[in-house]
Amino acid sequence: MFKIRILHFILALSTVSPAFGQKGSIVLEDQGSFAVGGKVITAPGAFHPIEDGAFNPSNQSSAGQTLHGDHAYVFYQIPEKSKELPLVFWHGYGQFSKTWETTPDGREGFQNIFLRKKYPVYLIDQPRRGRAGRSTVPGTISASPDDQLWFGIFRLGVGTEFYLGVQFDKSPKTLDQFFRQITPDTGPIDFDANTEAVTALFDQIGDGILVTHSHSGGQGWLTALKSQHIKGIVSYEPGSNFVFPEGSVPDPIPYVGGTLRAVGVPMDEFEKLTQIPIVIYYGDYIPTEPVENPAQEQWRAALQMAKRWTETVNEHGGDVTLVHLPEIGIKGNTHFPFSDLNNQQIADLMSEWLKEKGINK
Amino acid sequence: MFKIRILHFILALSTVSPAFGQKGSIVLEDQGSFAVGGKVITAPGAFHPIEDGAFNPSNQSSAGQTLHGDHAYVFYQIPEKSKELPLVFWHGYGQFSKTWETTPDGREGFQNIFLRKKYPVYLIDQPRRGRAGRSTVPGTISASPDDQLWFGIFRLGVGTEFYLGVQFDKSPKTLDQFFRQITPDTGPIDFDANTEAVTALFDQIGDGILVTHSHSGGQGWLTALKSQHIKGIVSYEPGSNFVFPEGSVPDPIPYVGGTLRAVGVPMDEFEKLTQIPIVIYYGDYIPTEPVENPAQEQWRAALQMAKRWTETVNEHGGDVTLVHLPEIGIKGNTHFPFSDLNNQQIADLMSEWLKEKGINK
Repeated sequence: MFKIRILHFILALSTVSPAFGQKGSIVLEDQGSFAVGGKVITAPGAFHPIEDGAFNPSNQSSAGQTLHGDHAYVFYQIPEKSKELPLVFWHGYGQFSKTWETTPDGREGFQNIFLRKKYPVYLIDQPRRGRAGRSTVPGTISASPDDQLWFGIFRLGVGTEFYLGVQFDKSPKTLDQFFRQITPDTGPIDFDANTEAVTALFDQIGDGILVTHSHSGGQGWLTALKSQHIKGIVSYEPGSNFVFPEGSVPDPIPYVGGTLRAVGVPMDEFEKLTQIPIVIYYGDYIPTEPVENPAQEQWRAALQMAKRWTETVNEHGGDVTLVHLPEIGIKGNTHFPFSDLNNQQIADLMSEWLKEKGINK
Repeated sequence: MFKIRILHFILALSTVSPAFGQKGSIVLEDQGSFAVGGKVITAPGAFHPIEDGAFNPSNQSSAGQTLHGDHAYVFYQIPEKSKELPLVFWHGYGQFSKTWETTPDGREGFQNIFLRKKYPVYLIDQPRRGRAGRSTVPGTISASPDDQLWFGIFRLGVGTEFYLGVQFDKSPKTLDQFFRQITPDTGPIDFDANTEAVTALFDQIGDGILVTHSHSGGQGWLTALKSQHIKGIVSYEPGSNFVFPEGSVPDPIPYVGGTLRAVGVPMDEFEKLTQIPIVIYYGDYIPTEPVENPAQEQWRAALQMAKRWTETVNEHGGDVTLVHLPEIGIKGNTHFPFSDLNNQQIADLMSEWLKEKGINK
């Protein structure tokens, strides 16, 4: 009894002490980083440290040398008295782990929000992206200006005009930070390398929840086929690579600017996706009927495919929940709901779902 | 008095609670990330969101679009009840912020060690590296195997043989992690972009201590010429770009595999380097006389130039301390003393120097 009273007293003190910061401190039991997955390639020949050991970038011999590449990079933080099941966050196309950190307007992202909710948090940079830049195959980076393309596809607005009511701070400084979250691939995107690295991560850390965004959505389904350690998936705006049973793959969905195709796998593989709870969220400004703007069209196709996929998994005994946020009264979200102005509300939704499914342990 | 007694009681409780982990918890008042510095380029023409707004990587129009690039990326952590002057850590060639995180053999790196010492810690990825991958100019990535080149230059050993007594764990898993810390440039290295971004960082955060490694050593001197906010520099194994007064630039130092040249700046610029305390550390396996191994030769030249530079800055009233670790009895260090097996000792040395210079506030 005495100990309990003391702890209450400490908690009371914490909430009034200014040193604990406006939102309270984050108490970490551990944090660190490592590479996981990946390959080793070796150039033919022999390495001679004396003859070939001088740094000469314009004419370096690779004979007999190795290159370690195609790993994922992981930064993890374990809060004190944490829950058992960690959240593993995987970014989308053209993005990296920054997706989950400080928002473009400087507020806390899902990294801090879920640490405060006592989840161990793992942030991935997928192979050949960000801090996992070492690729086993060559790459070229064009540096072609394309910010406005992404302004559209990420559904901030059209051209340079924000959508009315968008949950995004419109100050130029915020948009500047948002554009600087883009980072190039250092080699071709390789689904095998990516899904193998994330599978290796779960082998290392054990059971957990996978949180995906956009391009990692489809890769997340493929990873769940490989890893028994994924005990639930939260997917923000998955864009492609929906996995159906062979023989029941739906027709491709044409849209202005492209065609969305589904993927077929054997039934016994597909059925793995019926064994775990899955929730999918889509934001606002996604039309239900064809429009002329290709940046919206691709999400119309994705949402339509996601509905079909949800029905199919659930028909086979699965537990997929599809949430189109405007339909539950949450409006103005971009392609990045977890960093939008209402991201605390978005995080609470996710928390409630984890609790409802009993995987918030 | 009552409040003070309660705080003592909390501290006593903390040290016995098993939940605080073996080394104790890290209590953060804040953490986050942002981009700083950088440029914006704009392609000629006009962007048409309907005609050009579909994602088409093989034939994307850049007309009228912008690209935000050449910024640095920064991840920061502020411990509770922190010291005033933060430590800003800048990686070396082919490396990124991982340099300062978990060591290749899984122990705590300088990030955690100095958080525990109550310093605010800022980790930089310089422009066109790691999480700051968006470059305003194109780049190519060769993916040429060169691990053994770096094994030599980073002074783990020769060829594939470790040096006798090296402070590096010899298990294959550790070497695998070490090689995966290498990451390519996504565009040409640009000293102006790099030093401007780090200067912009100090403009944003105010006074602090810059900690450099290898290739950022020379860039650190150049940044200290631009920023009045750098109140001290800790430089691990600076490799090049030592800054001398014009007219007193020493002769280039030839070595097997190359030539080390110094840089001249006007005297009033040079004198800025005499206004702050600076410490330089070099590890082991650096010969004092020419040898045949180019991977050692480049460090022989660097150490020789660093001695000359130390003398010159101090002759002009500066306060540079050059520490060749084996000369004070600390043996076996590689090019990465801060992540070597004795990195706690190396950190303590740095702490003592900061205290001695009165910049551990």
